Amino acid sequence: MIFLIIGNYLVAQNLNVVKEPEVFPDQPRREIRMPQLEGYVIIKGDFHLHTVFSDGSVWPTVRVQEAWRDGLDAIAISDHVEYRPKREFLSGSLNQVHQIALPEAEKYGIILVKSAEITRRMPPGHLNALFLNDIDELDTESWQEALEAARKQGAFIFWNHPGWQAQQPDTCIWFDEHEKLMKQDLIHGVEVYNFDEWYPVALNWCREKNLAFIANSDIHEPVPYMPGYSNYFRPMTLVIAREKTEQAMKEAMFNRQTVAFFAGKLAGPQLWLEKMFYASVGVGKPFNIKPDGSASITLSNLTDIPITLKNDQGKTFQLEALSAVVIPVANLSQPTELPFIITNFFTGTEENLRVNLQLNMP
Amino acid sequence: MIFLIIGNYLVAQNLNVVKEPEVFPDQPRREIRMPQLEGYVIIKGDFHLHTVFSDGSVWPTVRVQEAWRDGLDAIAISDHVEYRPKREFLSGSLNQVHQIALPEAEKYGIILVKSAEITRRMPPGHLNALFLNDIDELDTESWQEALEAARKQGAFIFWNHPGWQAQQPDTCIWFDEHEKLMKQDLIHGVEVYNFDEWYPVALNWCREKNLAFIANSDIHEPVPYMPGYSNYFRPMTLVIAREKTEQAMKEAMFNRQTVAFFAGKLAGPQLWLEKMFYASVGVGKPFNIKPDGSASITLSNLTDIPITLKNDQGKTFQLEALSAVVIPVANLSQPTELPFIITNFFTGTEENLRVNLQLNMP
Amino acid sequence: MIFLIIGNYLVAQNLNVVKEPEVFPDQPRREIRMPQLEGYVIIKGDFHLHTVFSDGSVWPTVRVQEAWRDGLDAIAISDHVEYRPKREFLSGSLNQVHQIALPEAEKYGIILVKSAEITRRMPPGHLNALFLNDIDELDTESWQEALEAARKQGAFIFWNHPGWQAQQPDTCIWFDEHEKLMKQDLIHGVEVYNFDEWYPVALNWCREKNLAFIANSDIHEPVPYMPGYSNYFRPMTLVIAREKTEQAMKEAMFNRQTVAFFAGKLAGPQLWLEKMFYASVGVGKPFNIKPDGSASITLSNLTDIPITLKNDQGKTFQLEALSAVVIPVANLSQPTELPFIITNFFTGTEENLRVNLQLNMP
Amino acid sequence: MIFLIIGNYLVAQNLNVVKEPEVFPDQPRREIRMPQLEGYVIIKGDFHLHTVFSDGSVWPTVRVQEAWRDGLDAIAISDHVEYRPKREFLSGSLNQVHQIALPEAEKYGIILVKSAEITRRMPPGHLNALFLNDIDELDTESWQEALEAARKQGAFIFWNHPGWQAQQPDTCIWFDEHEKLMKQDLIHGVEVYNFDEWYPVALNWCREKNLAFIANSDIHEPVPYMPGYSNYFRPMTLVIAREKTEQAMKEAMFNRQTVAFFAGKLAGPQLWLEKMFYASVGVGKPFNIKPDGSASITLSNLTDIPITLKNDQGKTFQLEALSAVVIPVANLSQPTELPFIITNFFTGTEENLRVNLQLNMP
Repeated sequence: MIFLIIGNYLVAQNLNVVKEPEVFPDQPRREIRMPQLEGYVIIKGDFHLHTVFSDGSVWPTVRVQEAWRDGLDAIAISDHVEYRPKREFLSGSLNQVHQIALPEAEKYGIILVKSAEITRRMPPGHLNALFLNDIDELDTESWQEALEAARKQGAFIFWNHPGWQAQQPDTCIWFDEHEKLMKQDLIHGVEVYNFDEWYPVALNWCREKNLAFIANSDIHEPVPYMPGYSNYFRPMTLVIAREKTEQAMKEAMFNRQTVAFFAGKLAGPQLWLEKMFYASVGVGKPFNIKPDGSASITLSNLTDIPITLKNDQGKTFQLEALSAVVIPVANLSQPTELPFIITNFFTGTEENLRVNLQLNMP
Repeated sequence: MIFLIIGNYLVAQNLNVVKEPEVFPDQPRREIRMPQLEGYVIIKGDFHLHTVFSDGSVWPTVRVQEAWRDGLDAIAISDHVEYRPKREFLSGSLNQVHQIALPEAEKYGIILVKSAEITRRMPPGHLNALFLNDIDELDTESWQEALEAARKQGAFIFWNHPGWQAQQPDTCIWFDEHEKLMKQDLIHGVEVYNFDEWYPVALNWCREKNLAFIANSDIHEPVPYMPGYSNYFRPMTLVIAREKTEQAMKEAMFNRQTVAFFAGKLAGPQLWLEKMFYASVGVGKPFNIKPDGSASITLSNLTDIPITLKNDQGKTFQLEALSAVVIPVANLSQPTELPFIITNFFTGTEENLRVNLQLNMP
Repeated sequence: MIFLIIGNYLVAQNLNVVKEPEVFPDQPRREIRMPQLEGYVIIKGDFHLHTVFSDGSVWPTVRVQEAWRDGLDAIAISDHVEYRPKREFLSGSLNQVHQIALPEAEKYGIILVKSAEITRRMPPGHLNALFLNDIDELDTESWQEALEAARKQGAFIFWNHPGWQAQQPDTCIWFDEHEKLMKQDLIHGVEVYNFDEWYPVALNWCREKNLAFIANSDIHEPVPYMPGYSNYFRPMTLVIAREKTEQAMKEAMFNRQTVAFFAGKLAGPQLWLEKMFYASVGVGKPFNIKPDGSASITLSNLTDIPITLKNDQGKTFQLEALSAVVIPVANLSQPTELPFIITNFFTGTEENLRVNLQLNMP
Repeated sequence: MIFLIIGNYLVAQNLNVVKEPEVFPDQPRREIRMPQLEGYVIIKGDFHLHTVFSDGSVWPTVRVQEAWRDGLDAIAISDHVEYRPKREFLSGSLNQVHQIALPEAEKYGIILVKSAEITRRMPPGHLNALFLNDIDELDTESWQEALEAARKQGAFIFWNHPGWQAQQPDTCIWFDEHEKLMKQDLIHGVEVYNFDEWYPVALNWCREKNLAFIANSDIHEPVPYMPGYSNYFRPMTLVIAREKTEQAMKEAMFNRQTVAFFAGKLAGPQLWLEKMFYASVGVGKPFNIKPDGSASITLSNLTDIPITLKNDQGKTFQLEALSAVVIPVANLSQPTELPFIITNFFTGTEENLRVNLQLNMP
């Protein structure tokens, strides 16, 4: 035995084995605070992930563990149907991937959506099909057949990284093929953000064509090696559903009740951004009231979504996650609304959410 | 003009003056998430602070700015009445301190309590008097007179750092003088934590003598130089009040509705720790249910108070701030309560809060 | 006594007083790694600081403690001669400031330079005078007299924040008055960086007029509240001196042997930037050599100065502090030099350091 | 095009694709600063790693990329010969693992040692064999044969996690079988640290039986998910070699020129710990000299190895990586040596390095 004094502790140490350096939490999860929307839950999902079964570098169970740690509720592992560079070592049906990961998902209570990536030349490029039964049926000659096979299984289908330079070197074009697919109900959403890039033009597509706003990591390596991982949450799709089940999530996605959350920004339909904004921001009572009617108010943000407000004089207030700012009010006796543009909440390519904060009179 | 390409941005830079490195938030505040208690607000206070007017090293306004940044709602600047080593440079009434800091407090909406530290030999040692009108009246010959003068002004009085080694070298004794003061209604609380140390025996004093549990920073330097500042929040006293006003806070303190929060621990009355626990922990539905009735549940913590749970097999689960853990349930058909000891919530010197988590049946 | 099991430790806890949470270093200092220059030491200085004696908010000793913690070797406390808003509380000679801080400086081995800020309308604006004997003599009617009084005491004088918007709203102009002062040997350097902004045009002034490149914090509040403090070191002036003494530092400053280090950038004379670059970057042996002569090399940086290299194809490599990158070599049989522009090392307003890395043949 | 003003930048944004959030370093590596030992290089190695080919969860190339990022120079991927739970998916020779990872190792200049883990019941438990040619030959009936096959290939063999609770529930015993193996030259080192635990008794084994001190991660998951990864470097074995090549490293290991580095501690032979200590600590000139001969000196540490010094009065000084502390000297006219025990440098189970710091007289 060794006896040590550490601080005011007398310590008797076991010389056979000593755990270092302290009790670690068993599988810690970082919860992501979302606003509470009356009647809804916000499901945090990443619907584009790869494993060693296609061109990723981790075993399927790792994707579940990472989702738990990162505070996600749902994932889709979407290995490439047509591109499997490790086939020499790992062959057989892609249905195996879901089977391997499922017990881990059940262990952590993560919704695991059976999925695959249809991987073709542009157009139409790469598309993810979610909520599948049998991935093998998507291994067809033509992409048209593959998408129809997916749809037949009830799949929710979205177009991945539409502006990816390897497939769209200079621009980010909506091809006639996509228009046709959309009319055939074979595209329901678009990734407006993928891995480390976003596609501003795609925001107007979602807005004008009524497609779901999607953001995903498309991660191939272990998640902590993503660029920006230590500064931001992993990109994710927020699904605004009636309850936290696979079925409710699927319905919400088909209803376009999704918001893309990436690199400190939100992009989605006006309706949902507005609800999320008002449920996120607390408005304090005016204080520091001066004879001329000017005063201050505190805005607080108890969610993990940062909010950048610009007032009508063009001044910007950065309301970080879990923080507060004091903002000036010119005159309390004026109409008691303060208009702001929320410059990190996007409803379209060049459109931001506009809000009017109600003053909470003293 | 210099034109640069940064990422995909074409940048035209003003050569006269360039702000580095980005737009910084204007006076950022770090909000501290507390549980929501029905009918109450939790006021976060630090009631023991020094400035250049006694033996501190910052101007009074700094204490207000620091409180804002650190997420506090209320402070007491409590310079020593009898010990003013910078008197050669800074003399005059200690009432000046409050006067200097008040406009800054009004600017940020911080409750600033006029206060002072009565600084005497042990017994009775050092005591803080809060909610004063005139500090000069406390500058008396005897400590008895000073305390009576404070009480006459309606002060809430607590004993500071009772186990401070300079005054109690080996032990932490409750002197007869304290007993007498308590009976005269001249002590209402005890600092169970001060700066970087706590006094376990003092927890039983508070519990048995019905005194308020108090934790403070007693900071003399700028706050970021406190030991442990980057790992923990500053020590603070949580006052559970009807509303966030000085008056409501004072009433709550006289009612002993306080909880000490320090170094990842809570210490306070059973009633309030229990309310805080149940309002902090979310219990998910059982999942991963096995034929033998065993299952898992997720506990989540959406507050900034870490929670360490020990179950009846002695296994410990660390539920960090803003995180979740999965815990096992032996048998869902058994009585649907899970007993835990909360080893970082103290109701007495050697007593921890005990709770029974209600299972949320599927 | 309480006995606890923490990990594999049996712990007997003193109930009177417990230090939290662990042994803290006594006044920790964060060393800043600088390159080793043959025959020189690099003195890290911040020569523009305020205290409660003018418009700052901390006691003079705090500036010394902060310098120690932040890894600095030398400071100048430079309170405003003409602007003392707390004069009602703190009056008397500014020479007192040096006297108060000196014992603390001796305790930590920090070089404390007696200094003051001459604070006038533009032109000539604000100027710092370092290495003074008697600050009171600078309290004159005209700025010309003040500067001459400083120079008579042997002062090193530099122009502060030349592009500060309050004094130069739209531009950053070198006035005739500055030209005249320079010719009278009454200006020896210019702050190219102050607090949170830099003045690109001032880099050419230093380069063309042979003035010292200076960067300072100009901090009024406690240093940790500077914008960007958690991302960058405090802005500082690197003085390249024969030894770490006040005398050697003064000589080096008059010889213009200074480099400004701010927000991840260096600005200074070509000669010194070049020496610093080559002493910072380690070049590994070529490896991964292919039949066509292409290969890889590792560049490593064991200093705290980040380095951004752009090669002749325009590709950028970010060589962070204390890190390494692999860079490609097109053909090992070609002339064995690799040219780079160091885009964060500035020798002038629009000029960056250019280097040729010697290959270390296998 | 969108035009934005960000700070003082006028920004023209490409709406097709925008990279977020900034230029990221291409494969950043975190260099670990080691002391410079005259005539030697310190090779940082982790010689116990798993992949999907046994019970790990990542592809072999990931282990190389992680080594690069974590500042290592050498690794051994040591999948279990006898335990391959994913054999249903991944079968065939373990020699494939080395073949898959080698091109990645060449790309980054990482020394990749062909290795395997011989995985048997206790005694002798699990042993790693490094520097193999053909792993298949180790797949034998008896462990004696397996170890002899390894040795025939010139392997360096060490015993893994000797106090692992699954194999040594209460104690950490050196069995007769180990004694015999050692005499047959079939064990050359012992893991004194594995994953998150260390075995103090094993330090005396290494010291008394002349075995190499080894520390490894034994990681199965992606490395960032190791406990303590954000607080400490990954555990590693420092090999003190003549040059950074596989051959020189192998010779050094057979010469027992290794030091285990784990959880802020070093364990190794007195000789090498001493050399590392003196090459790590800089001793400044005495300053703050008082009439009674007392003074202060600064100790600085420019390496990434923290150092805890205890002086002969029992006072402890924590000299963190890349930092400095001021320590008192009682009397400069006394013998100018300061004795210290280095409480985090272990030469045996209960023995720490003792040093005498030479004063650097003024």
